[in-house]
Amino acid sequence: METGYYDTDELITALATPWGESALAAVRTSGNGCIEAASVCFSRSEAIAAAESGTIQYALMCDPATGEAVDEVTAAVYRAPSGYTGQDSVEIFCHGSLPGIQRILEILHAAGFRDARPGEFTLRAFINGKLDLTRAEAVQELVTAKSRKAHSLALGRLSGNLFREIDAVKQQLVELLSAVEVQLDYAEDEIEELVAIPADHLRLLQQTAARLAETYRTGRLYAEGARVVLAGRTNSGKSSLFNLFLKEDRSIVSEIHGTTRDYIESWITVRGVPIRLFDTAGYRFAEDVIEAEGIRRSEKIAGAADLVLYLIDGSRGLAAGEKKDLQKTFKNIPTLLIWNKTDISHEAPPAGSIAVSAVSGAGFADLEKAIITRLAGKDISQETDSMIDSLRQKELLEQAAEYLAAAADSIDERMPLDITAPEIAGAIDALGEITGEITSADILDKIFSGFCVGK
Amino acid sequence: METGYYDTDELITALATPWGESALAAVRTSGNGCIEAASVCFSRSEAIAAAESGTIQYALMCDPATGEAVDEVTAAVYRAPSGYTGQDSVEIFCHGSLPGIQRILEILHAAGFRDARPGEFTLRAFINGKLDLTRAEAVQELVTAKSRKAHSLALGRLSGNLFREIDAVKQQLVELLSAVEVQLDYAEDEIEELVAIPADHLRLLQQTAARLAETYRTGRLYAEGARVVLAGRTNSGKSSLFNLFLKEDRSIVSEIHGTTRDYIESWITVRGVPIRLFDTAGYRFAEDVIEAEGIRRSEKIAGAADLVLYLIDGSRGLAAGEKKDLQKTFKNIPTLLIWNKTDISHEAPPAGSIAVSAVSGAGFADLEKAIITRLAGKDISQETDSMIDSLRQKELLEQAAEYLAAAADSIDERMPLDITAPEIAGAIDALGEITGEITSADILDKIFSGFCVGK
Repeated sequence: METGYYDTDELITALATPWGESALAAVRTSGNGCIEAASVCFSRSEAIAAAESGTIQYALMCDPATGEAVDEVTAAVYRAPSGYTGQDSVEIFCHGSLPGIQRILEILHAAGFRDARPGEFTLRAFINGKLDLTRAEAVQELVTAKSRKAHSLALGRLSGNLFREIDAVKQQLVELLSAVEVQLDYAEDEIEELVAIPADHLRLLQQTAARLAETYRTGRLYAEGARVVLAGRTNSGKSSLFNLFLKEDRSIVSEIHGTTRDYIESWITVRGVPIRLFDTAGYRFAEDVIEAEGIRRSEKIAGAADLVLYLIDGSRGLAAGEKKDLQKTFKNIPTLLIWNKTDISHEAPPAGSIAVSAVSGAGFADLEKAIITRLAGKDISQETDSMIDSLRQKELLEQAAEYLAAAADSIDERMPLDITAPEIAGAIDALGEITGEITSADILDKIFSGFCVGK
Repeated sequence: METGYYDTDELITALATPWGESALAAVRTSGNGCIEAASVCFSRSEAIAAAESGTIQYALMCDPATGEAVDEVTAAVYRAPSGYTGQDSVEIFCHGSLPGIQRILEILHAAGFRDARPGEFTLRAFINGKLDLTRAEAVQELVTAKSRKAHSLALGRLSGNLFREIDAVKQQLVELLSAVEVQLDYAEDEIEELVAIPADHLRLLQQTAARLAETYRTGRLYAEGARVVLAGRTNSGKSSLFNLFLKEDRSIVSEIHGTTRDYIESWITVRGVPIRLFDTAGYRFAEDVIEAEGIRRSEKIAGAADLVLYLIDGSRGLAAGEKKDLQKTFKNIPTLLIWNKTDISHEAPPAGSIAVSAVSGAGFADLEKAIITRLAGKDISQETDSMIDSLRQKELLEQAAEYLAAAADSIDERMPLDITAPEIAGAIDALGEITGEITSADILDKIFSGFCVGK
């Protein structure tokens, strides 16, 4: 198939699994004549070339130029329109050996395959009608999800819930528009009774689009997470709180990542939001040069934070000058004041602070809620609807909402239909662009270039 | 199947691809009733349960407890005796999402699968007769191969060339032994003509076993590689030589690894041998404290080296005291003296040194050959026969060779058959242990525990 801007026939290949020693690796191929072209690289060429779609063949991969075997593999053969891309493809499962993978790719290159660009397999799936654009974007969102919540939201989009929601709005607009558009072709007096577009209906659809657009901030927060920095003077209990976060977190992510440098950091998950948590050196505001260096680094880390948790030792209260230092240091960074050590503190926490005991865990649930509410800008604990995680989708939804607001206003102001109709059509186009009915090569390039290779 | 020490029926699962975000990941399962047990985790349970061996099914993976979808996957179904383990198995190809992989493993755990131990899939393949032990060991050797040569050698062993070589020796011994063993049951005077075992034949077989055992050092060198450290005073041209090594190397490995710390290091391949090459700080033997610290680190790196390449600036010759410093610093480390800058040097290189120009590349081929010859203990450039990469195999081959030498000696000394026969039987047993005909649970544990998980 030849589209205006992109030749889907070309033979492409890529390693689809991470580059590393492992039991298995997968090398994908796709393109017109892919099965025949790849078959010459196998010991059982004829069996591969004749394989039924959706079957697995055991074979040696061999260099066709020398006959030398380069690996024992299994090959899954798909014939159009089956398989991920909807075109002929072979997925090769080889040993996860670095020199072996390299040899296999070289042999495929010699057989006419070129390296796939990022997202190129999914682009072909889109062009071949296997996925709309919201699903295609969900593929990459799924792969890069950093928490279960983000993964679950992306899987929902991959299964089409976002597409259905957007498409439902669009279908209603198409119906409304087609019911009245016929009037544009006739003089007003030729039609017995003019059909009016109900402004209220448009405003409802506008709200749906605007609400979806607004989920972007939350969707991003679930997908990308946030940088949260623990700060406070020495002995304010930063390390205890850091450890409490780690202990409370049941996600795998924190077990895998985590590294120690001048500061300690770890990925944790707080109420479904992935958080990169930093424990910095104490802020002692000291004169000492070496301490100043530690503080400078801490400030740099805090400066890139989405949120600073500033700990105060509640058993001692605010130190002299601490409040001023604090206001100066974190003046442009969202900060939560944490009144720690409530187990041994006798003072009442200052207004606006969150009282916790990093030792007993008291107040931790409130702290978690405060963190997420501050990061999301609202309480998102009850939100279960579909969310978006794509700036492109957000901007197009906003555009659709603007068109619909303008159209509803035009109707209220009794503007003629040839003013209103293009506004509604504009909204339909924006929604169509989200799902990929209307696209340009530039847009597709931009979307798919952010993908993993091999996807 | 129940063996004495290990229950192959248990349901096992493991991630077989590296842990990381990627287009695809593979989760393996195996065990008695595996397909039925896994099928409840899929949207199309019945299709999976009824799938023909060697086919791929598209399905959603779902949590059976909640019905919640956790990924869109393809599942390859194998029925005994097909597939890698030779027993029922399902290989699940999911999105390479970290929370997604974690969810899939959790669901499989809930369905009765336990985490596979390292090498457990290959252990089952061995137990089910899909692989002998030399091939099983080759699987892991293949995965961890750090150069093409090591990969190619391991693939040869995986295809059975080592097994055939060892088995051929063993078969000859079995024939020799069975021809004479009958004589043990009779008094000498009952047999008309005694059949003698030819000592020469035993010595030939002994040499074959000993020669194979000797390939271990070279096999290890190809598989594991060596640490080579560039040392020498500042401006002796260490960085230029480092860059020349990188430029000459065409392997992928050097492009991927390589990092910068106090020293620079990179994996390169020299004549098929993977080399971890270090460029250290200059050895200036200075009084200065900071320099001394750099030198201390350089010495630590050099101390762990398999070979030090000590560069001398040939345009200036050995500095005063350099030879003494050098002998002191590297007295226990194999060292090659490199007389660098032959392009601008007027002095003749000292005896035993290798003359190169890191700028023009002159002498580089000689340097490469010298490095490999020094590391291998001999010139290995022409060696193409099968090699071993397993200490276990080496020790058993040596054991077999010793038995055969003893047996040949016994024959020469006209010892009675009841002395010679057990010696030959000992060699047969040692060879049988290499291929896995004779094994114990301990041996298997030791072999397979060194494997990747998922293999």
